[in-house]
Amino acid sequence: MTPFPDWIGAHAARIERALEAALPPADERPAQLHEAMRYAVLGGGKRVRPLLVLAAGEAVGAPGPALDLAGCAVELIHAYSLVHDDLPCMDDDVLRRGRPTVHVVFGEALAMLVGDALQAQAFEVLARIDRPAAARMVAELAFAAGSRGMAGGQAIDLAAVGEAIAPDALEDMHRRKTGALLRASVRLGAMCADVAGDAAASSKDHRETAACLDAYAEAIGLAFQVVDDILDVEGDAASLGKTAGKDAQSSKPTYVSVLGLGESKRMAARLHAAALEALAPLGERARRLREIADLIVLRRS
Amino acid sequence: MTPFPDWIGAHAARIERALEAALPPADERPAQLHEAMRYAVLGGGKRVRPLLVLAAGEAVGAPGPALDLAGCAVELIHAYSLVHDDLPCMDDDVLRRGRPTVHVVFGEALAMLVGDALQAQAFEVLARIDRPAAARMVAELAFAAGSRGMAGGQAIDLAAVGEAIAPDALEDMHRRKTGALLRASVRLGAMCADVAGDAAASSKDHRETAACLDAYAEAIGLAFQVVDDILDVEGDAASLGKTAGKDAQSSKPTYVSVLGLGESKRMAARLHAAALEALAPLGERARRLREIADLIVLRRS
Repeated sequence: MTPFPDWIGAHAARIERALEAALPPADERPAQLHEAMRYAVLGGGKRVRPLLVLAAGEAVGAPGPALDLAGCAVELIHAYSLVHDDLPCMDDDVLRRGRPTVHVVFGEALAMLVGDALQAQAFEVLARIDRPAAARMVAELAFAAGSRGMAGGQAIDLAAVGEAIAPDALEDMHRRKTGALLRASVRLGAMCADVAGDAAASSKDHRETAACLDAYAEAIGLAFQVVDDILDVEGDAASLGKTAGKDAQSSKPTYVSVLGLGESKRMAARLHAAALEALAPLGERARRLREIADLIVLRRS
Repeated sequence: MTPFPDWIGAHAARIERALEAALPPADERPAQLHEAMRYAVLGGGKRVRPLLVLAAGEAVGAPGPALDLAGCAVELIHAYSLVHDDLPCMDDDVLRRGRPTVHVVFGEALAMLVGDALQAQAFEVLARIDRPAAARMVAELAFAAGSRGMAGGQAIDLAAVGEAIAPDALEDMHRRKTGALLRASVRLGAMCADVAGDAAASSKDHRETAACLDAYAEAIGLAFQVVDDILDVEGDAASLGKTAGKDAQSSKPTYVSVLGLGESKRMAARLHAAALEALAPLGERARRLREIADLIVLRRS
């Protein structure tokens, strides 16, 4: 089997091509908006979410073209959320992936429209997947992005600034803010093979596979955030590509501020183990998902 | 046949109930976000877009429950665009439908999240329609909302502030900014009956009906904006429920500023006639669409 770095390299390149094709050309009218959308999306990034779509889809034998589109859709949602998050009325961040943020380059008003247009683009791309589950996949992603998922988590985050927060409230916030979209990535990959998403119509084997993938997605969704919070304390701007120590400065509650650094690291290790255990019944076909779990927990940026 | 004011009253009430049901309850966590989403959507409004969905759907015999959901989806997109449009970095408006705008009541950051979450909610509602065309309907609405539709029109609008603009560039802007969503409303209504949206699979009769509806939607889409611009000059804040003369103050190009008041009124009359002519082949079943065209052009607010 291909070594993981080669798999990642080939699949990240494939996602880059798919994103490139999913976005309107930079010279199409309105050119400034399209140029800014491309700046927001094509400027690097780890592509963790689309890699999860591809790895989950490959674990269940989903067709490649559908996975590419689903991978683009989750990355477009992620990219839009970063653009809006960086705006002055939110986190007011000027640096992202080592480059000036969208509103710094293109202005606040256009940055807001970039986020709005990227969200619409995500659903358009997903709806055009030629699979019986396309509409259910849209509902899945919309739920993960909306007030019960990512946007809701951000609203809880806003309200929590400067407030004391209990560990379970912090977990609820992150389950929505970052966990929902990571979980949707895994589920959408499986739905491309019609595994998951329609309990009534699926076989026992499909339901069991879907349950394993859900447990995995749940664990890595939280692990991702815990590690992010650890890196915000231990990392530096050069390797993070964004301002380090930002959360502490803005008195946002983080796992490190609520649990302490040592307990946060133990929590990351426990979630890592839980993710790997969830995949055990799937055997060798879940290898890439295991390797992505390692990547998420052991990354340095 | 029911007189038009009774039809409007009954259908607007039906849309209000559907919107109420489509939005998360105000006491569901995160409660402030959900309360603000409800404030943004349930605060009145003419409901022109969902009424177009219902009227177009009824003209082609589409089932009511699907039309209710499609009507909600277009209104949620419209509502989100108003919330973002009113933000300080955009039009900086403090009054909408006679009440303080969302960011005035709930703050800028939450208002941005309200818009983001409403857009996701729109696609979730639409994707849950139990029709074969559900995924195609999502693609249709996403296209109308995105960079090639509404968001793109707003970007052109932004760039045009204080600039001279030719009549055809103004028309291109409005075709996207307001026209795209009005046109999608008519098309989604028809797609609920599987008319329009899939040229290969539809009958000659369906294609002809879809072409009539498209020509109608195109004409009323532009007429709506021309009348808006006329009312911005001639109306007053009390009946408009928003700040009058706002466009002129912010030196935004309008039909009135580009063509003059008299020519704008003649253009509205021509578009009104074109909309009615487009419906002629559909006979009596298009009656509500005709009446909505009258309403759009003859309204005073």
